[in-house]
Amino acid sequence: MISNSEYKKFCILLAEEAGKFVMNYFDKDFEVFSKDRKNNLVTEVDKGCQDLIKNRIYKRFPDHNIIGEEDDSSEIRNASEFVWVIDPIDGTTNFANGLPNFSISIALLKNSEPIAGSIWIPWPNEKKCLIFSTAKDGGSWIDNSKISIKKSHFSIGEGAISSYSSFSPIFGNKDRKIKPMNKRLRGDKRVIGSVAYEMAMLAKGVVSLALLGPAFIWDFGAGLLLIKEAGGIVLELDNNYEPKAEFNSFLNGNYQRDQETFTKLRNWTGKFIAGNPDIMKLNNHGKFV
Amino acid sequence: MISNSEYKKFCILLAEEAGKFVMNYFDKDFEVFSKDRKNNLVTEVDKGCQDLIKNRIYKRFPDHNIIGEEDDSSEIRNASEFVWVIDPIDGTTNFANGLPNFSISIALLKNSEPIAGSIWIPWPNEKKCLIFSTAKDGGSWIDNSKISIKKSHFSIGEGAISSYSSFSPIFGNKDRKIKPMNKRLRGDKRVIGSVAYEMAMLAKGVVSLALLGPAFIWDFGAGLLLIKEAGGIVLELDNNYEPKAEFNSFLNGNYQRDQETFTKLRNWTGKFIAGNPDIMKLNNHGKFV
Repeated sequence: MISNSEYKKFCILLAEEAGKFVMNYFDKDFEVFSKDRKNNLVTEVDKGCQDLIKNRIYKRFPDHNIIGEEDDSSEIRNASEFVWVIDPIDGTTNFANGLPNFSISIALLKNSEPIAGSIWIPWPNEKKCLIFSTAKDGGSWIDNSKISIKKSHFSIGEGAISSYSSFSPIFGNKDRKIKPMNKRLRGDKRVIGSVAYEMAMLAKGVVSLALLGPAFIWDFGAGLLLIKEAGGIVLELDNNYEPKAEFNSFLNGNYQRDQETFTKLRNWTGKFIAGNPDIMKLNNHGKFV
Repeated sequence: MISNSEYKKFCILLAEEAGKFVMNYFDKDFEVFSKDRKNNLVTEVDKGCQDLIKNRIYKRFPDHNIIGEEDDSSEIRNASEFVWVIDPIDGTTNFANGLPNFSISIALLKNSEPIAGSIWIPWPNEKKCLIFSTAKDGGSWIDNSKISIKKSHFSIGEGAISSYSSFSPIFGNKDRKIKPMNKRLRGDKRVIGSVAYEMAMLAKGVVSLALLGPAFIWDFGAGLLLIKEAGGIVLELDNNYEPKAEFNSFLNGNYQRDQETFTKLRNWTGKFIAGNPDIMKLNNHGKFV
């Protein structure tokens, strides 16, 4: 049996290779397509990067399944408890325009629960990147350094950064929906444009509080485990942006090795609020103090 | 007489040196202070970087004046038409928390009009940075490559990025103030947290439209010239976020070589909308088409 830690090591190798592939194209010319003509871009780099990662995974784990953002088909391949969820470029609009806030997200789910993952992001250092990795019950890491969300120095309103999706209802008058949570949604606001990048920054203690999504399973697979294993709290939100429950798995135990469940995972969307325990203080009923 | 282009070369040297200084501290431990306990951080790195830049400028141009964000005093030094405006770290909150979206902004004003400047930003490349530079009537540059704002590939609503200050009234219900401009304020929204970084991204064609500020003269000095010299349009906004006029100088010709004018420059705040000419279409009265 393969341990979570061994899966994590494989996730790091995939991220390294995928990151090198993507950086060959960043800030250069490549072909861009628009999925729906509404800010939903996809590039030849997204497709090439996904093919690269999928080929490596199927070579090593031919009896697993894979869900990638750029899949053409949503047919199940194997009746397996293992499903990989991949976003070859999260934040394609940033990537396509040339803004260095994007990411590669790779995660392995077992019965819909993330057990290992990696997030690659560009970074102004020698290697031009940071690779975050995580394994269930094994902590969260950048290279060989364990990271902790508690590292965040600042409190909300006194220097801490909070981050938001450009899809979240903080813009315009739509914010009435999140009125009950407004007290939480302070801090110096950022809209970064890549949810996996935001989750990596949260796990590192750079961002202190994040309203994440709405987004898909391939966006969240690695990042939610990364935050939890770094000591953060992740709550799933309902349609009114009220906290439902602490995140554990995407289908809460209702996993079957069949096409129906596979389709559910593929179509799954959700949103979360996440932060360090000092900010995310909850009472016994899971509500904010 | 020194040409704008020679001033530009000096701005590049300053940016190189200041950038190296700042990167010694990024993602490491340093002392952080809070100016007012409300998200207004300043670090020992801001102070050290400003001292470095100011010393270099006064050494070469002892008869000029300098305004820096972290100045203790606002007393005029020389009765000169030349004033340098410096932000040693623009986006200090990002820097202090460890988010690599910050900048160093250096500009020279002549009678309150920017004539040369540079912006340094972190970047995931060999040099770990990009240095933008500009001179009046001399174009905008990254190293030895001339940049043009028209490079932007995407149109608003179809992949283009628009950017906003975390202080601008797009959050919550405050956006009523900018209702007349809502039609313009589309695109895939970002809040980056450093106005000089945003302006560099605009000049490079990464960001297509930006609502800039409210911010100070040291934030805007280099970036506004950079955008104009890259072929972009910059309009100053009034308190109702209505365009007033195209930006030319900070005091519109009302420059005197005295303490009163120097204090005016130091206390100046403003806001702008800027973008490429395809997006910023204006009629003969300077209003949006």
